[in-house]
Amino acid sequence: MTPVSEQVASTPASVDQIAASAGDPIARQFMSVRQQTERLCDPLTAEDMMVQSCAEASPAKWHIAHTTWFYETFILSQFSPDYRPFNADFVWLFNSYYNSVSEHPEKKLRASFSRPSLEAIFDYRRYVDSAVLKLLTHGGTDTEEVRSRVVLGVNHEQQHQELLITDIKHAFWTNPLHPVYAEGELRTGREDAAPIRWHGFEGGLRKIGFGGEGFSFDNERPRHQEYVEPFEMASRLTTCSEYFEFMQSGGYERSELWLSEGWDTVQAQGWRAPLYWRLDSNADEWSIFTLRGNVPLNEMRNTPVCHVSYFEADAFARWAGKTLPTEAEWETAAANVPAIGNLLESSAWHPLAAKPAIADEGTGDLCNQADTSQLFGDVWEWTRSPYVGYPRFAPLPGALGEYNGKFMCNQIVLRGGSVVTPASHIRATYRNFFSAATRWQFSGIRLTKTLSPAQR
Amino acid sequence: MTPVSEQVASTPASVDQIAASAGDPIARQFMSVRQQTERLCDPLTAEDMMVQSCAEASPAKWHIAHTTWFYETFILSQFSPDYRPFNADFVWLFNSYYNSVSEHPEKKLRASFSRPSLEAIFDYRRYVDSAVLKLLTHGGTDTEEVRSRVVLGVNHEQQHQELLITDIKHAFWTNPLHPVYAEGELRTGREDAAPIRWHGFEGGLRKIGFGGEGFSFDNERPRHQEYVEPFEMASRLTTCSEYFEFMQSGGYERSELWLSEGWDTVQAQGWRAPLYWRLDSNADEWSIFTLRGNVPLNEMRNTPVCHVSYFEADAFARWAGKTLPTEAEWETAAANVPAIGNLLESSAWHPLAAKPAIADEGTGDLCNQADTSQLFGDVWEWTRSPYVGYPRFAPLPGALGEYNGKFMCNQIVLRGGSVVTPASHIRATYRNFFSAATRWQFSGIRLTKTLSPAQR
Amino acid sequence: MTPVSEQVASTPASVDQIAASAGDPIARQFMSVRQQTERLCDPLTAEDMMVQSCAEASPAKWHIAHTTWFYETFILSQFSPDYRPFNADFVWLFNSYYNSVSEHPEKKLRASFSRPSLEAIFDYRRYVDSAVLKLLTHGGTDTEEVRSRVVLGVNHEQQHQELLITDIKHAFWTNPLHPVYAEGELRTGREDAAPIRWHGFEGGLRKIGFGGEGFSFDNERPRHQEYVEPFEMASRLTTCSEYFEFMQSGGYERSELWLSEGWDTVQAQGWRAPLYWRLDSNADEWSIFTLRGNVPLNEMRNTPVCHVSYFEADAFARWAGKTLPTEAEWETAAANVPAIGNLLESSAWHPLAAKPAIADEGTGDLCNQADTSQLFGDVWEWTRSPYVGYPRFAPLPGALGEYNGKFMCNQIVLRGGSVVTPASHIRATYRNFFSAATRWQFSGIRLTKTLSPAQR
Amino acid sequence: MTPVSEQVASTPASVDQIAASAGDPIARQFMSVRQQTERLCDPLTAEDMMVQSCAEASPAKWHIAHTTWFYETFILSQFSPDYRPFNADFVWLFNSYYNSVSEHPEKKLRASFSRPSLEAIFDYRRYVDSAVLKLLTHGGTDTEEVRSRVVLGVNHEQQHQELLITDIKHAFWTNPLHPVYAEGELRTGREDAAPIRWHGFEGGLRKIGFGGEGFSFDNERPRHQEYVEPFEMASRLTTCSEYFEFMQSGGYERSELWLSEGWDTVQAQGWRAPLYWRLDSNADEWSIFTLRGNVPLNEMRNTPVCHVSYFEADAFARWAGKTLPTEAEWETAAANVPAIGNLLESSAWHPLAAKPAIADEGTGDLCNQADTSQLFGDVWEWTRSPYVGYPRFAPLPGALGEYNGKFMCNQIVLRGGSVVTPASHIRATYRNFFSAATRWQFSGIRLTKTLSPAQR
Repeated sequence: MTPVSEQVASTPASVDQIAASAGDPIARQFMSVRQQTERLCDPLTAEDMMVQSCAEASPAKWHIAHTTWFYETFILSQFSPDYRPFNADFVWLFNSYYNSVSEHPEKKLRASFSRPSLEAIFDYRRYVDSAVLKLLTHGGTDTEEVRSRVVLGVNHEQQHQELLITDIKHAFWTNPLHPVYAEGELRTGREDAAPIRWHGFEGGLRKIGFGGEGFSFDNERPRHQEYVEPFEMASRLTTCSEYFEFMQSGGYERSELWLSEGWDTVQAQGWRAPLYWRLDSNADEWSIFTLRGNVPLNEMRNTPVCHVSYFEADAFARWAGKTLPTEAEWETAAANVPAIGNLLESSAWHPLAAKPAIADEGTGDLCNQADTSQLFGDVWEWTRSPYVGYPRFAPLPGALGEYNGKFMCNQIVLRGGSVVTPASHIRATYRNFFSAATRWQFSGIRLTKTLSPAQR
Repeated sequence: MTPVSEQVASTPASVDQIAASAGDPIARQFMSVRQQTERLCDPLTAEDMMVQSCAEASPAKWHIAHTTWFYETFILSQFSPDYRPFNADFVWLFNSYYNSVSEHPEKKLRASFSRPSLEAIFDYRRYVDSAVLKLLTHGGTDTEEVRSRVVLGVNHEQQHQELLITDIKHAFWTNPLHPVYAEGELRTGREDAAPIRWHGFEGGLRKIGFGGEGFSFDNERPRHQEYVEPFEMASRLTTCSEYFEFMQSGGYERSELWLSEGWDTVQAQGWRAPLYWRLDSNADEWSIFTLRGNVPLNEMRNTPVCHVSYFEADAFARWAGKTLPTEAEWETAAANVPAIGNLLESSAWHPLAAKPAIADEGTGDLCNQADTSQLFGDVWEWTRSPYVGYPRFAPLPGALGEYNGKFMCNQIVLRGGSVVTPASHIRATYRNFFSAATRWQFSGIRLTKTLSPAQR
Repeated sequence: MTPVSEQVASTPASVDQIAASAGDPIARQFMSVRQQTERLCDPLTAEDMMVQSCAEASPAKWHIAHTTWFYETFILSQFSPDYRPFNADFVWLFNSYYNSVSEHPEKKLRASFSRPSLEAIFDYRRYVDSAVLKLLTHGGTDTEEVRSRVVLGVNHEQQHQELLITDIKHAFWTNPLHPVYAEGELRTGREDAAPIRWHGFEGGLRKIGFGGEGFSFDNERPRHQEYVEPFEMASRLTTCSEYFEFMQSGGYERSELWLSEGWDTVQAQGWRAPLYWRLDSNADEWSIFTLRGNVPLNEMRNTPVCHVSYFEADAFARWAGKTLPTEAEWETAAANVPAIGNLLESSAWHPLAAKPAIADEGTGDLCNQADTSQLFGDVWEWTRSPYVGYPRFAPLPGALGEYNGKFMCNQIVLRGGSVVTPASHIRATYRNFFSAATRWQFSGIRLTKTLSPAQR
Repeated sequence: MTPVSEQVASTPASVDQIAASAGDPIARQFMSVRQQTERLCDPLTAEDMMVQSCAEASPAKWHIAHTTWFYETFILSQFSPDYRPFNADFVWLFNSYYNSVSEHPEKKLRASFSRPSLEAIFDYRRYVDSAVLKLLTHGGTDTEEVRSRVVLGVNHEQQHQELLITDIKHAFWTNPLHPVYAEGELRTGREDAAPIRWHGFEGGLRKIGFGGEGFSFDNERPRHQEYVEPFEMASRLTTCSEYFEFMQSGGYERSELWLSEGWDTVQAQGWRAPLYWRLDSNADEWSIFTLRGNVPLNEMRNTPVCHVSYFEADAFARWAGKTLPTEAEWETAAANVPAIGNLLESSAWHPLAAKPAIADEGTGDLCNQADTSQLFGDVWEWTRSPYVGYPRFAPLPGALGEYNGKFMCNQIVLRGGSVVTPASHIRATYRNFFSAATRWQFSGIRLTKTLSPAQR
């Protein structure tokens, strides 16, 4: 173990380097994402960045170290011949789960990483930033692979940006004082939500998965054919108000609405509402904890319900006489929709109400799918598809093959990104996945209807 | 609670009744299955039938009571106007998981059901047998529904026949004395297994699911289209010898071969071999516990490997550079194969070695699928498909809707039946399902190969 | 492993043997206790004797095998040169916790011992009975040691008699049908309990521990001096009615009444009443499950409260402004009291109400200690003394040293025996011990008062 | 909930106040202890002070807040009529376990208290310091009670000083980088330890407990008589070298050396050495983690073994053919020994080797007890006495009664203080207590011999 005190001097990316690399779109993208991660930490103290409040979460400090480790491990150490690691211990200390790279500490130990200090981690970032920019500028042993891995690293870091916010929300919720991450009032939308309209899609063979230019994860490939049955998709997300109706009608007490494992979870965990909902001590008013603090449910009623598990999304759909979409249905609906919405850059910090109803002339069963709102951003939408490899799926070679493939069991796919997903990170073919009981994510509900043969 | 002592007198099905109903194929099927269940208990003492040795298992006594309860609850109490329950307590005592029917005891309490006595349970069986036969003979309030539900009850009982044997195998394994269920030597097959041949199947839209006459479970319906990519399927099951090679090459120590959750399970459970395998105290010879007692691995080498979890099947396939089939691939391969094989009626009590190689003239990539052996019986074959409802799946109405649908989460589909599946119970569209860590079932491995586009 | 089928033929103790040994008091005691154990099984079926319903309990069948194993292991195998074990497997199968003797199965596996059959266990008993009687009659390699160990074995078996009944009570409680062990009405005592009187004892040096003739366990020795402060002891046990008052006054909701670990246990287990108490579904009447079935609390009100943990006894005493006795106080009070009371031979099967008040002329603070009733039998009385070795305590040599000494940590001493303790088994110096959360024992409460210096 | 931002302005104790109170010994003691606590934090960062690495531990930040809370709750809020709490939330936030005072957060949540910031906690300290000094100077509603409670608060804070160091040691051990708390080399003592001599003590009635002037905890009172048997006590603590011999002779593999619950713990936890001992990756050299970093066992061989549980101390004693002392024996031996030794003020940060042997003329069985070294400081010495209330023990009235009494169950007494106990905090009657499996404390072993009657 190399003592931290012997660490090599950090060398921040100089103004010159940044200027030199400004003309390179990948270098620009790299610096932009690196800076974005640090901006997300602006409201946080070094103490906040130590908290790890549940098994799913990591301390914020770990996220900013681990994302740095990723470039060092998979790019600098492999393609930059004269690169010296910032600190020999960091090589294994900030490994998450890549068994092929090195031993790594148990996840729960991350809360004990008071050393290295936050300052040292920021030095680590500067040091790696500089080395990556140098490598991009002056080339390495395999220019194309380097550029492709920087793009992978950037996408990896964007995933951790989302996790960082998701985790700090849970940390602040766990703190009995419920600190606020972002100042300012939540934009909740006061006008009542428009009624859901149903947009129909014809059945048939569809091309599913990523087949275009640019970056995608291995789990989005290869593009392949699937047979999709006709279906209709709700024009907007399910709101808190609609979900509250489910609660009021005994949704959490009626076993017939739930998957068996969902029902067991409801009992074991004592679930009576989504995560972050609380009943006040008089048991007569609900409020919802957000990154902007607690807000009465009544004000939130038109916003999309959020932080529900797959079990809750599925039970709600059954109660409503509908289903959740398959991921092929969702991708069919989203295929031609621009990937814009209430995403990280909006700084809304919470899903927003859909636009209220405008006069709608079209009344046919099969509307224009452009009317489907909130597909991107706001909340990750639970599909009813378990997460499996596409036909002929091949993980990346080497240790990077551990990125996605080894999690293809007992996970459910979510689609569309959430309010804390960076805008440049999401696309129609993007596959997120969590286990069915997960609630700490910004996860919500979009309903679909299956058409019986007579209806088609 | 009605004391057992006040139970109504039991009325066994008289010879007359049996004779009267002998002409009715459903009555005949009913009596045949009822008798088969009891024959399976012949080697068991009342004490054996009390044992519940793991969370998945139930005591044999409970199985024979619960299968009886099923007819009473879903047929007699609903369609036989003058039917009086055998014992008012049995109505809730022997309910398994039908929340809509009644409260029911926690599963783990079943080991405390020393009362009612085994004798009383057999009286209960006679009483219900007689009432069902009467109802079938003289009709009830809805003859067609009654007949359809008796068939459902018969299929339900066949599932419990399989569970009864599976559970008693585990009970006898747990007993440090390792008692034997069936006397007589195991037929292991001494000649070496033929090399696997690969049978190719073209890609395209396939009809999947049950669409014919006769009985099927709701989860096999509706018959629908799926797009299946070209694939090749192994001509026989993976043998113990092949699996032992995986073990010898460090299969259980190499994390890169395993799904992440599988690797965690291997560590947590200390798995080093399939369930029922043991290394002797000198650590130099493996033996396998079977329903006929312990047999050295060497004698078992050509028999199909059995009692592996999905995690193990998946890791083995990755090690072998192959995959497990999807359920659509499996059903495609089995669609025109007669559902015969080493099933319960063979009294083999363990999967048998495939027939040794015979001279094979055909060498083309696309062989005759009739050459694929062991599709039915021997072991349940793990597919790589999570268990989900087919498109437009609708559970049975009412409490019977809890039969299958509520388990459609975090389960993997298995196909083909095992050596303890009754022959009349299995078919190409039949979907069994267990969680990925399950090993107490007779579950094994059939490999497939995916064709890359160039190979097609 | 020797197959059960090769077991040596069992040889029941012949009438002649019994007659021959009838003149020997130890042989008579041995046969009497052996028969008593089997009589306790009379109401039980082989199925009942398989049930193991909590971590503390063992199946009744195991108790009758293990008590037999004790004589075989510690007497016959060591002192009877030509003795052949009944079955080589039983040597380790029925070992409880004697690490020095052999490996032994995990306690929880005992529920899987459907084989050997109950019948085989009874054969084992006969075989061992006969061999012990022979050895007693004809002598062995060390007559004195043999005789002393038979007495130890007899006392060991009496402990298991009590456990057998305690365990079967829990087994029947766990069975949702709540079977009855003993027919006949419970003698509850209808007249109200006499008020408690307080019997004073002077302080001073006391001789504590066993110092007389006859049998005692190693943990009762050596007799030694302890300084005991003056105290007063309640004339009778705490009744259900008194305990119910504690419950009604919020005893289970007031943390200040409880030890910290006790309070945690109350929360974790959801305790609201002693074990075996139930509130009916209308939540307005309590009943108590006994070996004679359920009885309304109201009828039980004068009987001693039973099946309370140390935590509950301690909280009750604090609520009452009293304490529990130390074991030295208890022994001081019991030193000259005959060891008679409501014990196993009474066949009461439940603690009985104290005799109602009789005219009492004595009113002084220091009454005659003979007035202290219920010291022996009814319920084990929780002391406030942790279980430690007496000064200069030395365990028995060899494996028998594991009998008591290794449990001297985190256990509390109980004194006086209960309604299921054999009469010949209990004495004033007898030390029972259980962990503070234990409730499945017949354990109850006797209060004491400590005298402040001014009161002396 | 009062937002932190509305907190009242903090008012540090002015120079004047400190000067004014300098003449008051209690004020001086108060300020001295307050400053000492903060000095202990000098080597720590705000991030270090967030770590809570095991169930027994709390973050350092919490310790410095909670000790402040104690004065606010039990002194200022009750006796200072115009006192306003620093922050209304702190009233419940920093309550540890006083149920009578308020609801309080679960212990494990303390790791989420990133807010209030460390700076705010220090403000809180200044604010309370000032108010306490004012109250001491100008008097309150009950001068005597205030002074007495300040002394209690000071003693309470000293306990948390020790815990703070104990907890940060564990935190740094948990951090895979193993940071160092104190710079500088450990004074390990290179000369071999002198052989143990045995100092004899006569039996008889002894006065036990605190009966003098000055402060003591309620659990040390009342002073009372106990009968103590003759015994001999080792002249020094057990060393690492002696303990290593126990390990080498298979101490952790021999069940007969262990209490039953100890043996279970050894198996479940995989213990093979004391806490903080590690074998290097070649498995040939042990080192010990200390507050000054890792040190090879060989250099530590003469230092007292430390961080052993009661189970290990007891097993070692049994292996050595000795016992641990009772607390009455320990107190008898320490009664006239000055309470000096290697304590917190030594800044040794680890137990030190006993002084090497000097020429010893005395050879009688009963030596001068002044020869007994290391009684105070170095390590807490496990006694074999469970922690119970002394005869006529009465907890403090009100919420302060929760301080000690409610833990009198399943704990073992330790005596003598350790290297992290403040010198002014320890005395011969002081009773510390932990559960038998506890190892994170600086706890070690002193042996005693019991005299058989013949030896007296």
